[in-house]
Amino acid sequence: MKGIKIFSPATIANLVCGFDVIGLALDFPKDEIYLYKTNNPGIHIHRIYKSSLPNDPMKNSAFAALQALLKKYQKIQINEEEKIGFKIELIKNIRPGSGIGSSAASAAGVVYGANVLLGNPFNTIQLIRFAMEGERIASGIAHADNVAPAIMGGVTLIRSYNPLDITKLHSPNQLWVSIIHPQIEVKTSDAREILKQKILMTDAIKQWGNVGALVAGLYREDYELISRSLEDVIVEPIRAILIPYFYELQIKCKEIGALGGGISGSGPSVFMLSKGNYTAKKVIEVMNQVYSPLQVDYKTYISPINLQGIKWSEIF
Amino acid sequence: MKGIKIFSPATIANLVCGFDVIGLALDFPKDEIYLYKTNNPGIHIHRIYKSSLPNDPMKNSAFAALQALLKKYQKIQINEEEKIGFKIELIKNIRPGSGIGSSAASAAGVVYGANVLLGNPFNTIQLIRFAMEGERIASGIAHADNVAPAIMGGVTLIRSYNPLDITKLHSPNQLWVSIIHPQIEVKTSDAREILKQKILMTDAIKQWGNVGALVAGLYREDYELISRSLEDVIVEPIRAILIPYFYELQIKCKEIGALGGGISGSGPSVFMLSKGNYTAKKVIEVMNQVYSPLQVDYKTYISPINLQGIKWSEIF
Repeated sequence: MKGIKIFSPATIANLVCGFDVIGLALDFPKDEIYLYKTNNPGIHIHRIYKSSLPNDPMKNSAFAALQALLKKYQKIQINEEEKIGFKIELIKNIRPGSGIGSSAASAAGVVYGANVLLGNPFNTIQLIRFAMEGERIASGIAHADNVAPAIMGGVTLIRSYNPLDITKLHSPNQLWVSIIHPQIEVKTSDAREILKQKILMTDAIKQWGNVGALVAGLYREDYELISRSLEDVIVEPIRAILIPYFYELQIKCKEIGALGGGISGSGPSVFMLSKGNYTAKKVIEVMNQVYSPLQVDYKTYISPINLQGIKWSEIF
Repeated sequence: MKGIKIFSPATIANLVCGFDVIGLALDFPKDEIYLYKTNNPGIHIHRIYKSSLPNDPMKNSAFAALQALLKKYQKIQINEEEKIGFKIELIKNIRPGSGIGSSAASAAGVVYGANVLLGNPFNTIQLIRFAMEGERIASGIAHADNVAPAIMGGVTLIRSYNPLDITKLHSPNQLWVSIIHPQIEVKTSDAREILKQKILMTDAIKQWGNVGALVAGLYREDYELISRSLEDVIVEPIRAILIPYFYELQIKCKEIGALGGGISGSGPSVFMLSKGNYTAKKVIEVMNQVYSPLQVDYKTYISPINLQGIKWSEIF
């Protein structure tokens, strides 16, 4: 096998109270990636469609992630004479800067595909580490909030970075996600800078009470408990100012039945969780009602939780 | 029915990373309480055995909790002419000041028993609220960390106080608890005063990653994950100084197989969780090895998780 077609999903990081630790994978949108193993050493980004992403490999998350994998592979390579390179074609359906894991989808997709092409020498945690190098290029921080759910699927929890310890949580099967992506720019680095370095102990206790309850709600498939625990007393009050009509979206979506939601990643996308496809569609309608009168372009998405994560098929 | 015998269990609050939110109930030790419904209005603490607890009702948690219940009951009482009072006998097997929920056992036990004697007019959350009034008298703060697991049994999570929202988590059936109670005095109010009002965001994120993982570990019965998540980067480093040889206890118990553990409530008791009774017993041996050379009296306890919480039987 020398070529592989990969579908790499959008992801939501910072799942309300689970800031920096809980994320989930979506079925839609997803990037299409064509990855070819070649005999030309090095990594070549052949084409990028539907995006103005940097062709400059030093700024591209797919390149950086695959480079990290290749470097490690060369250390464990059995046939040292064999020359290995990769050619990448990216069809970016996930818009860069949307806050739903665009750079993560590229990075996670190529390392996942390369692992298959090489005969699966690496385990999941290793693949996540390689993909995190892509995130380092894209956002300045080698975070796993998006690459972990992209690779593992479902809802993931990062317990610790050192050592890297990631758990796939249970996903209730009627959990749906509605997303609105206002086409405004929020840089991850700016969104991080406005956060406080110190927080109130009382707020932190509220937050970890909610995190514990959210995880319990997922395992029990208790949508009411999930709904009550979707509360962020620490990050949302600060970042909400970056997103026009954030609270109006949140209040109106909950009024018509959304369980709750918040800022996806560091924004500008806003997501809402619902029980069932019917409510998730009504949430999209409400998002349209709030945003259509504004002078802001936007897109909406609707998706169930993607339990499998990245999917692939052989080309030749 | 006019008299009831109640067994009210010891409890562990502040379950390592779950500071202020996660607690659990023990099978042993437990208080024995005899509660009688009488026609003499008011609450009479008849006798307290095995303890120097205040007979002064204004300082007794059982009195305060039962008074809160009685006040509410009188508002909903159908037969307004009926005069109702209670007589309490407490046999305190849980030592006051031990940090394993002595005041909570008294408070929770009497309100639980009174509810049975009155024909169960109150629900669980109401009983917890009454018992919290006992905690207010005992520690200055109407916290639910101990009364919730005492009343509900198992491992409990307080998601929120306002509104009061408490969830009983899943308890893996091989989870055992070993406890050492050094007979030194640590006042809850002092233990709280030394805590910082502001904490680092990075520490808080670690803590809620661990809380999420602990809850996931409980539901999955994944003892390894439970073990890895029993880490407290915020409170333990400050309070550990109050307890002689705390870190030696923790390290040595983990060396011989304990999953992990920490300070019970605000101390001075230290608890360790283990998978299975055999390891829990070995942990007690290690606790003895560490403490027997010291000039400090101490007691040890071993118990499985108490899934039911308070138990009662009719007297007449």
